[in-house]
Amino acid sequence: MTTTTPSAFDTDTASTRVGEHEFALELSERWTTFGGTANGGYMLATCLQALRQEIPQPDLLSASAHYLRPGVLGPARIRTEVARIGRRTATGEAVLTRDDREIIRVLATFTDLAQADGKTAERADAPVLPPPAACVDPLAGLGAVGDATIAERVEFRMPEVPGFWRGAPGGTSAADFWCRFTDGRDADPVALALLVDAAAPVVMDLGVPGSSTVELTVHIRRRPAPGWLRCRVRTNYLIDGFHEEDFDIWDSTGALVAQSRQLALIP
Amino acid sequence: MTTTTPSAFDTDTASTRVGEHEFALELSERWTTFGGTANGGYMLATCLQALRQEIPQPDLLSASAHYLRPGVLGPARIRTEVARIGRRTATGEAVLTRDDREIIRVLATFTDLAQADGKTAERADAPVLPPPAACVDPLAGLGAVGDATIAERVEFRMPEVPGFWRGAPGGTSAADFWCRFTDGRDADPVALALLVDAAAPVVMDLGVPGSSTVELTVHIRRRPAPGWLRCRVRTNYLIDGFHEEDFDIWDSTGALVAQSRQLALIP
Repeated sequence: MTTTTPSAFDTDTASTRVGEHEFALELSERWTTFGGTANGGYMLATCLQALRQEIPQPDLLSASAHYLRPGVLGPARIRTEVARIGRRTATGEAVLTRDDREIIRVLATFTDLAQADGKTAERADAPVLPPPAACVDPLAGLGAVGDATIAERVEFRMPEVPGFWRGAPGGTSAADFWCRFTDGRDADPVALALLVDAAAPVVMDLGVPGSSTVELTVHIRRRPAPGWLRCRVRTNYLIDGFHEEDFDIWDSTGALVAQSRQLALIP
Repeated sequence: MTTTTPSAFDTDTASTRVGEHEFALELSERWTTFGGTANGGYMLATCLQALRQEIPQPDLLSASAHYLRPGVLGPARIRTEVARIGRRTATGEAVLTRDDREIIRVLATFTDLAQADGKTAERADAPVLPPPAACVDPLAGLGAVGDATIAERVEFRMPEVPGFWRGAPGGTSAADFWCRFTDGRDADPVALALLVDAAAPVVMDLGVPGSSTVELTVHIRRRPAPGWLRCRVRTNYLIDGFHEEDFDIWDSTGALVAQSRQLALIP
């Protein structure tokens, strides 16, 4: 008999049904970002896990989240609503609240990716990276990363460490690297929705101290194969304090699995 | 005294308040897409115009729409909800229905772009195009474009016409061109949310007959200057029938004004 410890991701994104369309959970201290509040991708994943319980299609296809207030840790509620269940796709909404104040509001569409069978034509390539073992752990030797506990849950391997990770912004605001959950849990579509928001904002390479998400949309393009994930992140436009961040993920086989963009604001 | 005719955009995206958070409108026959149903960007704009009446901030900042059913023309309703009104941003929701069936569901965040005053750093450039007068109107000589009346409301000028506009797909699925409203109305943030979905899907250049939007997100980066808009559209990944389309717009001065991405499905 094998006993497996549930992953931090599964444990901390789970919620308990407390009403017809209402779920209770704790925003965990294990997924905090700079400032000690819950990471935006983690909160999105809690909403999607609740919504999955009300929708027959197994795979997240597309999720859009608007961020209204910081995610203060502790007891929270998720209210769900099913907008439409179709044959091929289904769409629902989830609102995460803390003391009846809205933290994030999410629309999400689900499908069965195994049933998708249309045409395929790909016009771009996965990042070319040395194997993870030949890359650098940007956090090695840094110890704790302020109050950002998410740095203990997700690990990175980089061909070279961007300057801003060590306090010397290089002005490029683009990077390719590997990532995975530190405890070895493989990614699935909802996990990808967390991982696209798990790294430090690449806009920090332009010398800004951090940023707060206004909106994040992630599209899941395939179920990911097990193993390390290839990531590409880029910010092209910081305008009057607002910036986009594009964060795309390919799986260990080099297949595109997630495309995301967030709009964020420098505090 | 000058009399001006209201623009087609203003007339056809307007709705009448019929309840505390409910608006009535007609989905107009002037903004149809292939198949004769209402264009997705047009329906998004109707939702945003209704929501603007309930939110103090003047400018659309970010809108995310999930498309649930085709927009059959005729009488429709929009139900709105304000999620949070903050000092800097405010977020609301709008649901467009037809005979009590949901057509699209939208989350949108508004701000006052004139008050945005943070850092600016731009790492990409506007499309370089010959002046509109030196470009080609891809619809010249084509007459009506099937039942897509939106082709009479929005006009394009292209350095060269992509093959698929004339039935000979070139396999590139990328293009740069000019666009504007045909009646000369200048764009504002909500108009940009329509225009990012106004052109024929560039994935048609891969030989597919068309596509249906699943999700569309648009971020408004600046209030646009008057005049022709520079557009860049690209689809990199068509996978099992699903594809993204990135559609970015710069204004006549070459400043980035809108970034959008949609996920769509080949029927």
